[in-house]
Order: sequence, then C-alpha cells, then structure tokens
Amino acid sequence: MFATLSDFHDALHDLPPANEAWRTEAQERQQQLTKPLGALGRLEECAIFLAGWGDEAAPRVENPRIVVFAGNHGVTARGVSPFPPDVTEQMVANFASGGAAINALAKSCGAELDVVPLSLDRPTGDISRGPAMSEEELLEALNAGASAVAKGGDLFAFGEMGIGNTTVAAALAALSFGGSGAQWAGRGTGLDEEGVAHKARVLDEVIELHKEAAHGAADKLRLAGGRETAAIAGAILAARHRRVPVVLDGFVVSASLAPLVCDNPAIVDHCIAGHCSAERAHRKLLGYFGLRPLLDLDMRLGEGTGAALAISIVKAAVRAHNEMATFTEARVANRKD
Amino acid sequence: MFATLSDFHDALHDLPPANEAWRTEAQERQQQLTKPLGALGRLEECAIFLAGWGDEAAPRVENPRIVVFAGNHGVTARGVSPFPPDVTEQMVANFASGGAAINALAKSCGAELDVVPLSLDRPTGDISRGPAMSEEELLEALNAGASAVAKGGDLFAFGEMGIGNTTVAAALAALSFGGSGAQWAGRGTGLDEEGVAHKARVLDEVIELHKEAAHGAADKLRLAGGRETAAIAGAILAARHRRVPVVLDGFVVSASLAPLVCDNPAIVDHCIAGHCSAERAHRKLLGYFGLRPLLDLDMRLGEGTGAALAISIVKAAVRAHNEMATFTEARVANRKD
Repeated sequence: MFATLSDFHDALHDLPPANEAWRTEAQERQQQLTKPLGALGRLEECAIFLAGWGDEAAPRVENPRIVVFAGNHGVTARGVSPFPPDVTEQMVANFASGGAAINALAKSCGAELDVVPLSLDRPTGDISRGPAMSEEELLEALNAGASAVAKGGDLFAFGEMGIGNTTVAAALAALSFGGSGAQWAGRGTGLDEEGVAHKARVLDEVIELHKEAAHGAADKLRLAGGRETAAIAGAILAARHRRVPVVLDGFVVSASLAPLVCDNPAIVDHCIAGHCSAERAHRKLLGYFGLRPLLDLDMRLGEGTGAALAISIVKAAVRAHNEMATFTEARVANRKD
Repeated sequence: MFATLSDFHDALHDLPPANEAWRTEAQERQQQLTKPLGALGRLEECAIFLAGWGDEAAPRVENPRIVVFAGNHGVTARGVSPFPPDVTEQMVANFASGGAAINALAKSCGAELDVVPLSLDRPTGDISRGPAMSEEELLEALNAGASAVAKGGDLFAFGEMGIGNTTVAAALAALSFGGSGAQWAGRGTGLDEEGVAHKARVLDEVIELHKEAAHGAADKLRLAGGRETAAIAGAILAARHRRVPVVLDGFVVSASLAPLVCDNPAIVDHCIAGHCSAERAHRKLLGYFGLRPLLDLDMRLGEGTGAALAISIVKAAVRAHNEMATFTEARVANRKD
C-alpha cells in the first residue's frame, strides 16, 4: 500500500531486480533438456524469465490470478466511444454472473478471477477539460491495485473494463512518449474512420491541456488517466515489490504502465507482453517498452483476455522446463559435434 | 484404412466439406456475444471453424489427441543431421517414460498422447540414391496413420520424431511446389551454415532424381518421404473422412501434407496451422496452403509441440464461444449506432 504519492514515487525508483543466480541455473537446465538447443524458442525464454522472479530455482505457476479493474470516464461526454457509458457497470454485472469472455478464458487457463469496480457512479473528470482525478482519488485507485495484489498469487494478469478507456490510454501513451492524437488513437470498441479522427482531435486537446503539468508518472496518471488505469499501475508496481511476475494484456493495460516506464524503464523487467492487440498503437507502445508480445491473435477486447491466453503458454513453458528429462537422465545421445 | 493406394487416391479426391449451416449458426452467435464485434479476433475464427466440423451446432473439444509418429531415414548416411540416427529410438523411449517436451505439453493442453514407432530398425532408402519405400511399405505407413485416427478423438494433432526428417520434409515440399534445395533446406536440429549448404546440395540430388516420377501424392510420399511423413498424410486424410479437425504442427508435419495439397487443395479445409516454426521454409509452405499460423514462438522441435500449445488456444476459443452470455441474456446495451 502507498501511504502517500511520494511512497509511490519511491517504490517506482527502488525496484528489486530479478534473481540472476536462478536465471542462470534455469538457462543451464534448458541446455541439458532432451531437445536441440533453443528448439523450444520463446518457451525457454519464459521459463528462464519466471525462474528469476520465483522463490526457488525451479519456476512455478500454481496460483495465477487475473484482476479486472473497472472505471468510468468523463471524457465519454466527448463522443469517443460507440457504446454508452452504462455498459461499464452492465459488464461488471456480466463478470459477476460469469458471462463475459474473461470468465471463460480465466477458467480455460486455470486462473482465479477477481473483479474490482472503482467508484463507477463517480466518473473521472473529462480529461479534455481538466484533470481526471484529485491526488486523493489517484492514491485511492493506486491502492486499489496494490490491495488486489496483496491477496496473493504467483503470476498476475490485470484486465480492465471502462467505456472510453482507449482514449484515456492513448492520452497516457502520448504524454509518456510524445506524438499527436492521431498517432495513438485507434478504433477502440469499433469506431469508424470518422470516429477515430474525432477521437484523435479530442486527444490533441487533452495533450495540449496537460503536457506542461504531466511530469512524473503520478501526474500523468492523475491528469489524463482513469481509476482503472491507476489501479493497474499500482498493481504492477506492488507486484514487483512482491517479486511476482506480470503478464501484460492489451493497449489499455500497457498504456497504464507507460508513465511508469518513462520514469524508470526497469519496471518492465518483471513483465511479459502477453499479446499484441489489434488496437493499432499497441505494437508501437510495446516497442517503447522493448517487449515482444507472445501472442498476436487480432484480439482487441481487453478484460485481460489476451493475457489469459498467454498464461496458458507460460504454464506450458514452466511444465516443459520442470518435467522434461535431461540427455543424461533419458540416455539420449547429444549432437555429434 | 486404405486397402490399396488407389483407395488413398480416391479418398483424397472425395473430401467431405464443412457443415456450412453450423458455421453460419456459430457466426451468428459470435455477433450476439457480449463483446464488440470481432474483438476476440482469431478465437472467433477458431470457434466458427470447429463448428463446421462437429456433430452439432456448438463446437466441442473434449477429447483432443496427439499422435507422434517416429521413423528412420536412409538419407542420414549423407550427413544431413548433427544428431546420430540412434536418437530416434532413444527419443521414442523418452516419450514412453514421459521425459520429452511433448509429454509435458500434451498434459498442459489436456490432450491424450500416443506414440507410434514405425519400423525403426528398417530405415527407409536413401532418397538421394533411390526411392524411400516400396508401394507396400507406403501403404503400411499410410494405414498406420489411419489406424491411429480410428482410435477416436474430437481434435487431432500429429507430431513426428525422426533424425533426418527435415531433409525428407524439404524434399516433399520441393517436389510439391517446386524450388531448389536451397529454398527449402533449413537448420533442422541445429546445422551450421555449411551444414545447411550441404543439405541443400543433397536435396538438389533428391529433386533431380525423383522429379520425373513424382507425379501424384502417393508417388511423392513413396519416393522422397519417410514412414512418419506418410503416416501423418494418412492420418490427416483419415481424420477428414471422420470429419475431425486437425491442428498442424511444424515444418515436417506441414510438408507431409504438401503432396496432398498439390493434388487437392481442399484437404487443408479441416486443418488449422497451429504455429509457425523457426525452421525457415515453414512460413513459405503455409503460404502455399493459404493458412495463417495461430502461434509464432520461435519453436522448431517438432514432436507436435507447437500444435499442443495451439490446442490450448483452440480450447479457449470454444469455451468463450459456448460459455459467454449474449447482449440480451446479460442485459448489456449494444452499440449506440
């Protein structure tokens, strides 16, 4: 938990590193397993990555958890989404009754699912006219993220629901890495070309309004973010301090992390890019993070759905790492040279 | 089962089509589920694809099966692999004791695993000097594939193990779609550049020797294939006649299908490309099939490992399709326009 915003700032600038000894041990084991060296490609990478963040040399994923944060956004007044804002709350009810995509996909990858609605009756301020939140509201949202992580888990994915939040995400990305509204605006839930052009113009207003004041991560999250994007930022940072790795979902989750990456690029070291969203600016954003997505399935739903699929792949990677026999154990001859 | 090679030929030219009514029903359901239209991307495609090959409107994957076929190859005498040919049999023992990558990954995706060694003590003929097999041997291998499928399953993946078999696969690809040895030769289990150049020269000899006689699918499989590649071809064709979809693994599995695609391109209609292998000619081969791989994880192990990971994705797609609520059921408002 962050008692003050300066705690959040300090936590971001004092990140624990991966355990290099365990990474090296995992790397050496990969070289002895019964397969040509490197033949499991990114599965080997995943297993070695996880080893660096676990409690022991062998990587484990036994209790993966997906937490979906939901928030409402004043900027929907600007007509940036084809869906009405009521849908945020309706979808939270849909999560509760098990009818959303993330319910099915969390079960499919064997992850627990929590849903955290964040003051849905109090949308954030319209970021094209003023700040999204007060400092107190930001702190509360960051701590909602940290609290969710405190419930435990050995691999996290965070998802989001919030009509209007690809606009907010694009604003966070632009304030973090520069560029105009047009460079970060995408179709979201399904805008047509004219809708995307309008969203880009609104984003230009947002950027113009906040760029002077949006210095550090907390300022960006407060001025141009939303409750769910702040919660995700808080959760990713809290997970790092617990040394629990995170599978990133799509554009909104990645954009929630962008202001933190700006201040301290090492924040991505405990993160895997679960997938590349069809929301077109996502690939560019992952490029700024230096992360290569595991999956690329033309998905653009959010909720943590892309990350849930990636969890299956990560679990498979861990299983192969721990269960495969070495050349010696299996009495299989290695290369002739 | 194929009583004669002419049965095999007839089966290839009389392929049952997908059930279009069930595909349409699945497509319509996808439009009603609580998500923006198309937001689940390739998961939606997978669910609709599977609906077309099932017994009812709702797609199901309850009994996926992976069958690994193993064979030995006379062409290893030409030094086309850095591993000794004994490794084929040693790896079959490793499969039996549960120590190979495919054992871990089959468990991870909830698939049953069968391993079918094919006369490992009798390697096929050196395809750079003569035919791989007699007609009787080919028929036996095709039927080994068909028999494996007859054991049941509602989604199949086929894998292979056989030192030297990326050379055989490259030969099948070249005889099917043209091109020189250099265009189809890759690193296999880990050749260096000089090794790949040598493999390409051997392949040029193979192509020169067989290109006149390798007319139809059966000729190509017999002259330049191996027992495991023929078994895979027989299994994929037999699965089609049972209307059971197939998740293709990597380069060797795809190349096993290449001669059939040449004769009747509709053979790919019940197939999903599970992944794109790091074996470099695989992407080109999938291009000839008109298939886009689901996964791209730098893997190049064979054994069915890429397909096993893809099965997890396909199962997740089916789960989302069947378990998600519609807009009406969940009382979620749809788009405003």
